[in-house]
Amino acid sequence: MLKLFHSPGSCSLASLIALEEAGADYEVVRMSTGAGDQRKAEYLAINSKGRVPALVTARGVLTETPAILAFVALTHPNACLAPIDDPFAFARCQAFNSYLCSTVHVAHAHKHRGYRWADDPAALAEMTRKVPETEAACFQLIEEEMLAGPWVLGEAYSVCDGYLFTLADWLEDDGVDPKAFPKVYDHRERVRARPAVRKVLAEQAA
Amino acid sequence: MLKLFHSPGSCSLASLIALEEAGADYEVVRMSTGAGDQRKAEYLAINSKGRVPALVTARGVLTETPAILAFVALTHPNACLAPIDDPFAFARCQAFNSYLCSTVHVAHAHKHRGYRWADDPAALAEMTRKVPETEAACFQLIEEEMLAGPWVLGEAYSVCDGYLFTLADWLEDDGVDPKAFPKVYDHRERVRARPAVRKVLAEQAA
Repeated sequence: MLKLFHSPGSCSLASLIALEEAGADYEVVRMSTGAGDQRKAEYLAINSKGRVPALVTARGVLTETPAILAFVALTHPNACLAPIDDPFAFARCQAFNSYLCSTVHVAHAHKHRGYRWADDPAALAEMTRKVPETEAACFQLIEEEMLAGPWVLGEAYSVCDGYLFTLADWLEDDGVDPKAFPKVYDHRERVRARPAVRKVLAEQAA
Repeated sequence: MLKLFHSPGSCSLASLIALEEAGADYEVVRMSTGAGDQRKAEYLAINSKGRVPALVTARGVLTETPAILAFVALTHPNACLAPIDDPFAFARCQAFNSYLCSTVHVAHAHKHRGYRWADDPAALAEMTRKVPETEAACFQLIEEEMLAGPWVLGEAYSVCDGYLFTLADWLEDDGVDPKAFPKVYDHRERVRARPAVRKVLAEQAA
């Protein structure tokens, strides 16, 4: 059985949604990044990066959301969560997830986790100040060019959708009005209404 | 024919190495990110992110290094540049590339491109100051846990190797002594000695 280390409110929600959409045989180990669980010795023994998510498989541990999403899609082909038989379409799927991981999530991380890149409190405050601007620029690009509709890749739902949902659901907290991006906003609510997502969100809130 | 937009000294070198190792039918459009080519209208029409690399294919444009590397590996299976028939091994390959893209490259970017996340000159200087520390921490993790040897994934060379080489070759300029990481250092020179890499580096220097 797959085991996902997940902290509610974090990006590991994207992997949890993918597992549920896939109909995977999995269990969740609930973490709290707010309480610093990811830096405790027992978790560092599983994922020395000290971040969520981590997916424990029969072959070993996987980290990095785009890799976990690819793994779930590849190992559950009947769920059709990525265009795994079309190298170009699959690369587009990976490109979308890579952008979320390396640009959008990084923009967000400068709000509360600027200590990764600076120590001076004034610099941390300056990073936090700029987050709404950088995040809005990311979502403007997604709105205009990267969301084919109704789903990210077009007619078929994919792992990209749960990942975009996860990050788009941070917008209000990050000081960005999601209604400034109507396609993203509608997409977010479309994902939220899916049975698998409703189930996962209800469990997370319990 | 594939067309790669590449700026010497940038991360697009990883995609160039992959194309050469694959024996792909490709051409290079030489850019200079130092001269700001990536922000010119003609390039923004190809890749509105204003970054390199971009790979123009018969089906459309691909961006994001991990996605381009996956595409090259998947479309040139005889070159054996990724374990494309093993979902777990392929996900580990994607996880490695995702870490380079979203953590290692991001750490590096705070040296000269801190303006992405802050405006205040003092904050930019503070980010630049911390780069050797953050980058060394990344390479310490790679040294200790992520480089199986002799290649990143073990006995078989993969797209991960050219990507790690590309980023490891920035260490001196970023104020990090690569010899502090003997496995990474040896790996870097092992990659540099490969015929495909020598060819690409010679052309880049011409």
